[in-house]
Amino acid sequence: MEEPFVVVGGDAAGMSAASKAKRDDPDLDVVVFERGEWVSYGACGLPYYVKGEVESLDDLVSVTPEAFREERGIDLRTNHEVVSVDPEAETVTVEGPEGRFEQPYGRLLIATGARAVEPPIDGMDLEGVFTLHSLPAARAVREYLGFDASGPADAEPAVDRAAVVGGGYIGIEMAEAFAAHGLEVHLFEMLPHVLQPFGEAVAERVEEHLREQGVQLHLDTAVEAFGGEGRLESIHTPDGEVPVDVAMVGVGVAPNAELAERAGIELGESGAVATDEYGRTNHEAVFAAGDCAEARHVVTGEPDHVPLALTANRAGRAIGQTVAGDPTPTGDIAGTAVLKAFDLEVARTGITDEERATEAGFDPVSVFIDAPSRAHYYPGGSPISIEMVADRESGRLLGASMVGREGVAKRIDSVATALHAGMTVAEVETLDLAYAPPFSPVWDPVLTAAKVLHGKLD
Amino acid sequence: MEEPFVVVGGDAAGMSAASKAKRDDPDLDVVVFERGEWVSYGACGLPYYVKGEVESLDDLVSVTPEAFREERGIDLRTNHEVVSVDPEAETVTVEGPEGRFEQPYGRLLIATGARAVEPPIDGMDLEGVFTLHSLPAARAVREYLGFDASGPADAEPAVDRAAVVGGGYIGIEMAEAFAAHGLEVHLFEMLPHVLQPFGEAVAERVEEHLREQGVQLHLDTAVEAFGGEGRLESIHTPDGEVPVDVAMVGVGVAPNAELAERAGIELGESGAVATDEYGRTNHEAVFAAGDCAEARHVVTGEPDHVPLALTANRAGRAIGQTVAGDPTPTGDIAGTAVLKAFDLEVARTGITDEERATEAGFDPVSVFIDAPSRAHYYPGGSPISIEMVADRESGRLLGASMVGREGVAKRIDSVATALHAGMTVAEVETLDLAYAPPFSPVWDPVLTAAKVLHGKLD
Repeated sequence: MEEPFVVVGGDAAGMSAASKAKRDDPDLDVVVFERGEWVSYGACGLPYYVKGEVESLDDLVSVTPEAFREERGIDLRTNHEVVSVDPEAETVTVEGPEGRFEQPYGRLLIATGARAVEPPIDGMDLEGVFTLHSLPAARAVREYLGFDASGPADAEPAVDRAAVVGGGYIGIEMAEAFAAHGLEVHLFEMLPHVLQPFGEAVAERVEEHLREQGVQLHLDTAVEAFGGEGRLESIHTPDGEVPVDVAMVGVGVAPNAELAERAGIELGESGAVATDEYGRTNHEAVFAAGDCAEARHVVTGEPDHVPLALTANRAGRAIGQTVAGDPTPTGDIAGTAVLKAFDLEVARTGITDEERATEAGFDPVSVFIDAPSRAHYYPGGSPISIEMVADRESGRLLGASMVGREGVAKRIDSVATALHAGMTVAEVETLDLAYAPPFSPVWDPVLTAAKVLHGKLD
Repeated sequence: MEEPFVVVGGDAAGMSAASKAKRDDPDLDVVVFERGEWVSYGACGLPYYVKGEVESLDDLVSVTPEAFREERGIDLRTNHEVVSVDPEAETVTVEGPEGRFEQPYGRLLIATGARAVEPPIDGMDLEGVFTLHSLPAARAVREYLGFDASGPADAEPAVDRAAVVGGGYIGIEMAEAFAAHGLEVHLFEMLPHVLQPFGEAVAERVEEHLREQGVQLHLDTAVEAFGGEGRLESIHTPDGEVPVDVAMVGVGVAPNAELAERAGIELGESGAVATDEYGRTNHEAVFAAGDCAEARHVVTGEPDHVPLALTANRAGRAIGQTVAGDPTPTGDIAGTAVLKAFDLEVARTGITDEERATEAGFDPVSVFIDAPSRAHYYPGGSPISIEMVADRESGRLLGASMVGREGVAKRIDSVATALHAGMTVAEVETLDLAYAPPFSPVWDPVLTAAKVLHGKLD
């Protein structure tokens, strides 16, 4: 009898793979080891739980452990940590409440995710300094703010001043969460601009909006230390000291690739596990997916590490299908992302950074345009700003970044689709996109950007 | 010296072509004949003018006649009707305030647009029965309702009960406009469902919403006559008589192709002017574009007549470029369309009708799914319903139709882009589309539809 399909890590990639493999091949034994209590939860919802728009951590769980076990027939073991992998013997060593044991596998999926980077700043261990790496971490922040762990977060907060360290997704979403509770909010970003992957032009519009919303921006500012006796009291920077009561550190994530590395599984340049188009590692029977793994970028054709939810879900599902006997590629990534920044929608896809585009062998040309979100005469419209980048010689679209009060979040998808199709800007310019006065000008902002960019290439 | 570039018709296609040709080749004489007073206006905004959201007809004008003449150097002649074309002599005959004259052309663009179909119903000539074919027509409706021609339409309306005949774009937008003034609204549709090009499943959700909004639907109901003495008093149907004070008839548009036909210019099967990929007719020097012309459908590869604003603008601009010496294809159409129906967004693209797909040589397979507009835990989401159609053998995506309270209008664009790229549903399923809890579930509804449809094809 075949050894089971063993999955390490019970979140997006792991549970997608386990569920799909079991559904497509019900005779296959599927065992999932998850070192924590929680599985299959929406980590992207954590800022909204702190904000109070999501009332309970349970709301973030898509499928409960019981449902995985009873309805889907998966042997899911929470509080079990896989401490080593032996690809030659095809076993994993597991530590659980019952002690340490060996588990043989037929196929193995490493889906160990990523963790919040903890920068080497003095005082990271002070009470009141948080990262948002897990459900319990989010609960701790909410309780520190003085709210119950469940229910509406509408009490008077227990603190007055909040800091966010890092101007990425988490940083901006947490700035919004803190501000919603009426806290004074300081955002510290080491680089000259927030949202580095969105480019400077888009970032500047976001920064303007953050300021309008009362967020005090400290750009180009490295946090040197968290100050306080036991409990956070201030943030030290080269420009001085800022008194704060609570801080969220969101300076990026790092792949949990150590387990794989120790087992001799190859990592890519990014430090995440290298995989082929089916999510296989250098060991035939070992797959990797989700935030711990690389995927192929549709623009460069090269491996990349963009830890996002859809990539994890999609790769997990494809690997489940492959394991069940129907080889399925995990799919390329375009680095498509969107975030809500207070009243703005901010989105990106592809390669927009000049340096990265040049490294990948392109000669990038970019434009930055403003276009209205609705027909000029239809009330309530607002500008959408788009940066669009193409390769000079081939005219190929490389990426775009955009920001506006409405109509941005899903407008980026047509650009992402064009990237997957390898379209030129001339081709994008003649797409038949939707028009009606409440939703777009006749020439959609994406078409206008392509038109202007096309003109610049000629 | 070269004879001028003559354009017949001063709206989207005509003025786009004239502007682009003159900009790219300033030495070229460009003459535009427009039989009416108005040029370059947003006809799609007329229902919102009647509704009162657009306060003045002037707001609908993108560029004034003076600006075309003085800033763009175009010899624009309003109140001039071209009554015949002689493609052999390369002249047009024009009737204007100064009498009848001949105008030679080097290149000619026929951009005569379309008109509202006037069905052969008794009483069409009664006072209170309208079509929405022009700016003056919209003004007449607004005045009939008792509002000033300009300014907010917030007085007490002069009438109580309105009828809309035809459940297409205009019909539904006008139902919204009438309802906004507090009128009792009856919508009559000959077919079993409204919005025929969107398919039955999507139409049913729209119908449910129209009823919720108080619109009385008379589906499968042919209007036999408008009753009244001089002034409209009722609508007669096989089911009886419905008393109404005002009626808007929107049962489709017909291309204004008679001028071309009389000149021996070939029409296509649709009755609109046949064109090649550069918008040329069977006469080398004569182009046609906009609502009077056909364009190639990206799914079928065949000529089609889908009179929409972007198609007209895009083709006009391309022809202007071609005339100025840079041959530019007018671009394929996908039949992408969106409309606001009260609180719903309704969108479509491609071929979703089974009969049309079969005629075009496909074996259509379709799915209809519901998916949430936001992450399940993020407040305020609502279902998006998508019908998606593919060809069984090739797996090629043929089209989609969708409806929901949010996130639909621009979500259709990724599907339209995929159609232009000739993608299969398997390719659509692995697109890297944007995800964040406020804007989408992890698997975007478009991906979910593609996934389910893919499963049905296997």
